[in-house]
Amino acid sequence: MSRPVTGLDLDLSRFSINQMTVKQLSLPELVEACGELGVPAVGLWREPVQSYGVEAAAKLVRDAGLAVTSLCRGGFLTAIDPAERALALDDNRAAIDEAATLGTDTLVLVSGGLPPGSRDLAAARSRIADALTVLAPYAGERGVRLAIEPLHPMYAADRCVVSTLTQALDLAEAFPASQVGVVVDTYHIWWDDMAPAAVARAGAAGRIHSFQLADWTTPLPAGVLNGRGQIGDGSIDMREWRERVDSTGYAGPIEVELFNEGLWERDGVEVLKETAQRFAEHAL
Amino acid sequence: MSRPVTGLDLDLSRFSINQMTVKQLSLPELVEACGELGVPAVGLWREPVQSYGVEAAAKLVRDAGLAVTSLCRGGFLTAIDPAERALALDDNRAAIDEAATLGTDTLVLVSGGLPPGSRDLAAARSRIADALTVLAPYAGERGVRLAIEPLHPMYAADRCVVSTLTQALDLAEAFPASQVGVVVDTYHIWWDDMAPAAVARAGAAGRIHSFQLADWTTPLPAGVLNGRGQIGDGSIDMREWRERVDSTGYAGPIEVELFNEGLWERDGVEVLKETAQRFAEHAL
Repeated sequence: MSRPVTGLDLDLSRFSINQMTVKQLSLPELVEACGELGVPAVGLWREPVQSYGVEAAAKLVRDAGLAVTSLCRGGFLTAIDPAERALALDDNRAAIDEAATLGTDTLVLVSGGLPPGSRDLAAARSRIADALTVLAPYAGERGVRLAIEPLHPMYAADRCVVSTLTQALDLAEAFPASQVGVVVDTYHIWWDDMAPAAVARAGAAGRIHSFQLADWTTPLPAGVLNGRGQIGDGSIDMREWRERVDSTGYAGPIEVELFNEGLWERDGVEVLKETAQRFAEHAL
Repeated sequence: MSRPVTGLDLDLSRFSINQMTVKQLSLPELVEACGELGVPAVGLWREPVQSYGVEAAAKLVRDAGLAVTSLCRGGFLTAIDPAERALALDDNRAAIDEAATLGTDTLVLVSGGLPPGSRDLAAARSRIADALTVLAPYAGERGVRLAIEPLHPMYAADRCVVSTLTQALDLAEAFPASQVGVVVDTYHIWWDDMAPAAVARAGAAGRIHSFQLADWTTPLPAGVLNGRGQIGDGSIDMREWRERVDSTGYAGPIEVELFNEGLWERDGVEVLKETAQRFAEHAL
């Protein structure tokens, strides 16, 4: 493959590309493209990293000088059955170990939905709190911070019972900020008039452990998983959110994480380039 | 058509069937089925009522002894363009007049989404407040209460920038309760841990002007409009919500409003019967 070097004349110092945005690229292809375009950081996902080999992936990104801004994802901590809960805790310990191996300080947690047959959101949220009492110190000992990600309320039943940044922060604040914080993802919280106050509260406590961008576009596709819009295509004022997060003192990476069938059908390097450009145009 | 009379041996004294749930039935068919099954009340929609004729519809339900618990819907008050805003106000005045003619005291308002190209949710919400200063007294003079319906946050961009019961109540409280209140619809607020407090606040102020049930089922269909689950099929504890609303002193009608392609494909009378049974089984 002989793509020309096409470094972009953009300030990408805080830009991080989440692997899922360009999942059509293999890990080596992604690393190479980041080098060519001057993208300094990536957010990785466990499944493709495990396929490649965790140690090998760690070496690949380290040798390329790429920062790993987060690993997605642990969580799914809402099961009632004790055996299932034990398995989930084991899996999260493994995810924490993988994050440490990859050299990232942040593991994103997606909490999990309602167990089959249950209608009790409050109880599910309380089981997450219980699981964190086990996982938070384990993560802390390995230099990894757990980042609780509130997902949009449309995922409350089947994916994540933590639906607002306020809820995520309420869960996080039972632990030291060096162990547990939150993900601020525009896609999930943009509609919420309480979110700005929660951002301020999270920032003041040093608990913004990940900041992610995706735009809101409609109509939503069936299943509502893979319709996250390219930056600038939707209803979210990206600059306002970036400034809001920065105003709390946050100066860390900004990941763009898009699940989008249309983007996945295109050339991955082109999508990466477009995403970097949109980031600079709309968020900086 | 010679369906046998099949009155259900259920307590349907507070049950109201929203017309949209069985939109495959014409208005006369719906009225006849309600009589057969012992359903005492309906929630109507403007479009089918206009098609039938507002005065004729009013006479039809009145002669059948059916109560009209609400008219859906006014709203769509977020336009920026002055001409569009004037048209929207005219349309809402017409909706208020229609509600009065139909003998219902409640007009449901769906506020409207972001205008094309806008990313400013707060400004859109403020234009709703402005419109209410015109519409609330007009409604009050005609014995009609405006009921602001928060829609699920997944509709914030394209349908309704009022996403929580708290926001709806904040808007309503600038006006007398006899003019403006809220809709409590389980489908839209079930995920929200702040909603119980908002229900209490709305009930204490006499602002629960409509109480609607629909269940949350997944996966959501494309466009996320027509996937509201039959009562009992999903993740929402209907009895808990009904008791919560009642505990504020609310003793009014409980409408079941489902938008569901699967239900629309079935025999409408069978769906009405099933809905009444599910209501009694899961909500009472």
